[in-house]
Amino acid sequence: MHKERRFVIDTSLFTNPNARKGFGDSTIEAVKNFLKIASKTSHLKFYMPVSIKKELKTFLNDEEIPFLEAIVTVKSPALYELQVPAAVVYKLIDEIRDRINKGLRVTEKILRSEKEDLSNKIHYLRQRYREALRDGVIDSKEDFDVLMLAKEVDAIVVTADKGLMKMAEWLGIAFFEAERFYELLSYEAKVDSTFLNQST
Amino acid sequence: MHKERRFVIDTSLFTNPNARKGFGDSTIEAVKNFLKIASKTSHLKFYMPVSIKKELKTFLNDEEIPFLEAIVTVKSPALYELQVPAAVVYKLIDEIRDRINKGLRVTEKILRSEKEDLSNKIHYLRQRYREALRDGVIDSKEDFDVLMLAKEVDAIVVTADKGLMKMAEWLGIAFFEAERFYELLSYEAKVDSTFLNQST
Repeated sequence: MHKERRFVIDTSLFTNPNARKGFGDSTIEAVKNFLKIASKTSHLKFYMPVSIKKELKTFLNDEEIPFLEAIVTVKSPALYELQVPAAVVYKLIDEIRDRINKGLRVTEKILRSEKEDLSNKIHYLRQRYREALRDGVIDSKEDFDVLMLAKEVDAIVVTADKGLMKMAEWLGIAFFEAERFYELLSYEAKVDSTFLNQST
Repeated sequence: MHKERRFVIDTSLFTNPNARKGFGDSTIEAVKNFLKIASKTSHLKFYMPVSIKKELKTFLNDEEIPFLEAIVTVKSPALYELQVPAAVVYKLIDEIRDRINKGLRVTEKILRSEKEDLSNKIHYLRQRYREALRDGVIDSKEDFDVLMLAKEVDAIVVTADKGLMKMAEWLGIAFFEAERFYELLSYEAKVDSTFLNQST
């Protein structure tokens, strides 16, 4: 039998088109297929923070996800017990400060630009502001929940979010790129079924 | 004799005109007077992170501060040993996210405004962007050093920075408002000299 392995699933596995492509074209299809394949594995355990389930539900127009809790343990991390090394918080505060400064620079540049009309300016502003302030850095409490849950239950984070990956590195938490997860899961489900067939 | 009490000194005690007013009109004058009064206390201990000393030196055109180390223990917090509760990091990430969203709203509003000329727009942008992103929230690694050093040596933070105070509250770290510190320190120095005179 294989050793037990644990995964914490981030929303991006189902919402990022590139990440979910093995599982399905839409978010709901991807969730359903993930649950189907996951149910065929016996040595893998899946976890999801409550906040990520809520986030996922907003992508599904608030529809309940059938059988989610049968396959996935939905629980919040024990935030009042877990600790984060001060050195990591220091890095995070420093990175956010850099990004805040960068955000002001891109904003000023757009404000000063004379070439573009207002609607183009607004468009560029939203895009570049997001790039400066949010891309590649942890930017939501849901992301942080994913990391802390992985730390708590000693699991591997499955995500397509670069900011989440970066902070997982800082914290020494394992992660697996969401776009390669379909392949891994399918392989594990096949190995399990081969094993079951051999033992009967 | 009084019980020993420890203080971590933030730059704002000397750079914020309102905070330093008892100590002096300029930063250098405030530092010198602080050191003079502090040297008269025997039961108070003073600390300053290395990064805060560097920050202070930039305000003094890189001049060395005479006798600083005689009165103040200058040391960095042990960031690789200290831990921060995950619940506090969660609150911080959530607050920064709110502020990033607010920053985009104020920026868009200024971009759309038709009343102001470009130089006014830039002026408002810098002011409101700062208010949205940085005021009232911990926004630099120097601030974080102050908090962690206070945690490490069990000291009271002396600061005029609202963001620092807020995170001190979250972390259960004592703080004292910089603008009332001249009064406290003068009182303690007087009590000490009275005690010394009585015992001779």
